[in-house]
Parts: sequence; structure tokens; C-alpha cells
Amino acid sequence: MSLSPSGSRKVIDPDTYFDQNSPPSNLEWAHSAPIVLVTSGGTTVPLENNTVRFVDNFSLGTRGSSSAEQFLAAGYAVIFLYRDKSLQPFHRHYPRGLLSYLEPDGTGNVQIQAKYRDSVIRDLHLLQKYSGTKLLMVDFTTLSDYLFLLRAISQILAPLGSAAMFYLAAAVSDFFIPSHSMSEHKIQSRDGDLTLRHEPGAQVPGTAVSFKLETDPELLVPKAQYALNKYGHQIVIANMLHSRKWQVWFITRESDQPYEIRIPKEEAEKGRDIEQDVVVELAKRHRVFMAA
Amino acid sequence: MSLSPSGSRKVIDPDTYFDQNSPPSNLEWAHSAPIVLVTSGGTTVPLENNTVRFVDNFSLGTRGSSSAEQFLAAGYAVIFLYRDKSLQPFHRHYPRGLLSYLEPDGTGNVQIQAKYRDSVIRDLHLLQKYSGTKLLMVDFTTLSDYLFLLRAISQILAPLGSAAMFYLAAAVSDFFIPSHSMSEHKIQSRDGDLTLRHEPGAQVPGTAVSFKLETDPELLVPKAQYALNKYGHQIVIANMLHSRKWQVWFITRESDQPYEIRIPKEEAEKGRDIEQDVVVELAKRHRVFMAA
Repeated sequence: MSLSPSGSRKVIDPDTYFDQNSPPSNLEWAHSAPIVLVTSGGTTVPLENNTVRFVDNFSLGTRGSSSAEQFLAAGYAVIFLYRDKSLQPFHRHYPRGLLSYLEPDGTGNVQIQAKYRDSVIRDLHLLQKYSGTKLLMVDFTTLSDYLFLLRAISQILAPLGSAAMFYLAAAVSDFFIPSHSMSEHKIQSRDGDLTLRHEPGAQVPGTAVSFKLETDPELLVPKAQYALNKYGHQIVIANMLHSRKWQVWFITRESDQPYEIRIPKEEAEKGRDIEQDVVVELAKRHRVFMAA
Repeated sequence: MSLSPSGSRKVIDPDTYFDQNSPPSNLEWAHSAPIVLVTSGGTTVPLENNTVRFVDNFSLGTRGSSSAEQFLAAGYAVIFLYRDKSLQPFHRHYPRGLLSYLEPDGTGNVQIQAKYRDSVIRDLHLLQKYSGTKLLMVDFTTLSDYLFLLRAISQILAPLGSAAMFYLAAAVSDFFIPSHSMSEHKIQSRDGDLTLRHEPGAQVPGTAVSFKLETDPELLVPKAQYALNKYGHQIVIANMLHSRKWQVWFITRESDQPYEIRIPKEEAEKGRDIEQDVVVELAKRHRVFMAA
């Protein structure tokens, strides 16, 4: 058998090969497992090339990190594109420093404080179960990093078609300063006022769900509809800054009426995640969309 | 014995009382223990009253949290005024989420991974030793919160005179938007450009050491000297963004020559804290200053 390309033995045509052989029993998974890109946390826009100051968008990453957990529970593979140091799936329940959760165990060693022990054991188990198999972590800091990574991941997921969902929960800046017009060094305070120029936001290709956070109730639905049309997303999830943990609305082109998801405020305050209801509804719609 | 103010028994004059009685053996501590206010982390300036976007200053809080540990080791009581979620003394060695440092112990429980165990035991011991006795934690987020808290703490420490040191390692914004001129709601992207106005930085009363971080070497010493004169601090510690972990300079009015503190770059990269050398030198100068 010759390994040389000029050998007399012909290389079998891949399509012929796959037609003539049986697939392995777990092949179905690679075609049917839905995948979601979850973006999370705020982006920064540096004001200088040697970054000391930047404009930041408020986001701890609560929405994104909770949603990633719910997508994993719903059987999705998750690419988690998150702001460095923002909340991460499973880790998010322990936002304080390591030492805050420990106590001496009386034998010269340390242990998890009793009130956290059960949840820590459960979350560590889930994190280790998903890491490297169903959960891929990718971090960013600046708006520019975010946009480059988002484009690269979009290109990788493009062949999956409707099986790939883009769940854009990151708080993306709509201010922008091109790198070449940035000050090389720290802007000097005596140089006077600083002006940030508005630039159009980036469009995202593919099947996309995005969020629109507002503080003014009058603008919420019109702005969500505007984003829906401008960026061509399938669903814009509208939410108000002060009620976002217990009330959101799905805005779509198919319906004039926002689809409301609401959980009791008291349950949200006790730790129930509205993202569970949001993801269950999205997964249902995604199945219909993939079947179509 | 009458408790009534109109009773015939006179209330003893406090000065007379203290003249006639012996002080407890540990009273000396209250007068001689030096105290330091350490500020740490970056300040934010909200761009809206319902804060979604803000201008932030880059600072993890490494300098401040490390310095606080060194001041505690040097016998100081420390008030740590720090940006919420920035690095904290002893916690700072574990910046990742809790779960990153754990592993299953094989019996259904979890334990600290072996490589972190000794340092975690040591840091938890130190944290518990100092907390509530020598270390007081006070957090802020915005520039406005920071300035209010700094003023209040300055007023509380004023009677201590030269025994109180102000060690201002926080990265304080020199941009400012007065609350009443802020937009009530999220600034609308179509509203056009956004202008931040420079306002003069706040002066700090008392015995103060502050930091001047620059990226342009030409400006470092002149800007530190400018800050020294403008704010009336005793020492400005000048440092460059890219060498700040192994090289700083003390700028004072008493000397034309900056006093350099430098440790080998390789040792800094291995985790040696230059703040130890900085604090030892400051504590020495502080003793001289208090004795004078």
C-alpha cells in the first residue's frame, strides 16, 4: 500500500466511505446536541493605549452565569464568553474571597463552614462534571477583545446552523474610541475635557437572543423593537434595571404582544433564578426552530 | 446616694478623677499604637443617576491590600477603605472563585487542594487574628462615596495628630460629573457625544502619603512634585505602570533627590512584595515624625 500521492492505489472518496459504513452509536449526539454561546459581564473601553482609565458598563455577570447553568441543565453545550473577574457558572454563589468560607477545623487544618458545605459540594461536583466536556470558558476585558472573540466563535459555529444559539447577555458598550486615536499615555488632567464618540454597535450573525436593559419604562419596548429590527435577532429580552430578577419580556417580530415571564418577587429575593424559566422557554422555542 | 441631678452629692470632675487614680497597665497602647488609613482600589464615576455606565480607574487593589498586611505586621492598626470587590488583605492571594481551590476528599466532602493548604491556613489565621481588633474594613464604589468616607474618617482621626497616617493608594478619578447634572436615566445612544468635565481633585487633611502612577517617564517626577505641593502631602510615592512592582521613588519637599526603593525584578515576579520595603521605610520615618 503506497502512502505516496502518486501511488497507484486511489484514495477513497469520503462520501462513498460514509455511505458504505455504519456510524457509531453515539454519533447522533454530535448532530443533535444543541450548543449555545452565552456572553456575560460588562465590556470596557480604554481611554488610553496604556490603560489606566476606561469606561465600563455595569454588569456583575449574574444573568449570564446563571443562564449558563440553566442551559447546561437543559442539555446544551455552553461556550461561556465572559468578562474577566465577572461571575462564573457555579462559582457565582461564592462571590467573596476564599477565606470568607473557611474556618479552622480544630486539628490545625481548615474546612468549609457548615452552612456552605452542602452547596459547595454540589456546585464543585457540577463544575467538574461539565468543565471541559460541556462547558468552555473564554474571557475578555475590552470591547475590542469581545468583538474579535465573538466574530471568531460565530465563524466556528456557523456550520451548525440553527442548532447554535447566541445568547448575548453581556453589557456591551455603545461608546467607542478607535485605538489609533487614543492617547498613548495617561490623559493629563489639565488637558481639558474628554469626549467619547458614539459609534454604531456591532451586528451579530446567526440565531440570536439578546437583552435590552433600560431604566426608563417608556422606552423599554420601543427600544427592544428597534434592536430587534436593527440587528436582525430572533428574540430581544427586554428588562428593567430594578425588576430584572423577577420580570422580563420576550420581544419578537412574530408577535405585537410582548411575552412576559414573571416569578414572585419574594422568591427571586430568596435566590430563585428567573433564568431557569427563561432558558426553559428558549429551549422549547429552539427545538421548534431546529425542527422547522 | 442620689442619682438625681438635683441631689446633694456632687459629680466628680473628670480631670480630678484621672489625676487621683492610676491608669491600667495597657493604657499606653491607646496613646502610642500608630494607626494608618489605607485606601485601595479604583473609584467609579457614574455617567447616569440610574447607574448603568460609569468611568472606572484601573486598580485591582494589589498595592493597597499588600500594604495593609505590611502595616499590620509593623504593629499598626489599619482602617482599610477599599473599592467593593477589589483585593483585600490576606484574601488577595486567592483571587479566583472558591471552587478553584477545592477538590473532593474522597469521602463525599471537599478539601483545600494540597498546594494551597499551608498558605490558606496561615492567611486565615492572620485574618482572624487581626479582624475586629487591628483591622477595620470599610468599602466604597463611587468617587462620591469615597470622598464622603475619607472626610468622615479624617475627622475621626484628627485628634490623634501625627500618630495617624493617611496612605492613599486608591486610584482616584480626576473626572467628575455632579449628580444634579447627571442624566436621570440611561444616556441614549442617539443623544450624541458624551463629555466628562475635569474638576479639581479633593485635598486630604493630615499626615499623608499618596501615590502618583504614570506611564510617561518624562512626567513622573514633575507630576509627583506638583501633587506634593498642590495637596500638601508629606510624601508622594511615584511609580511607573510597568515597573510598579519592583521600583518606586519617595518624593518629599525635604530633598531634591528622589529616594528610590527597588527590589530585584525576578523576586517581584516570584511574589515578593515591594510594599514590605515601602512600609518599613515609612514606619521608620513615621516614628521620627511622631517623636519630633
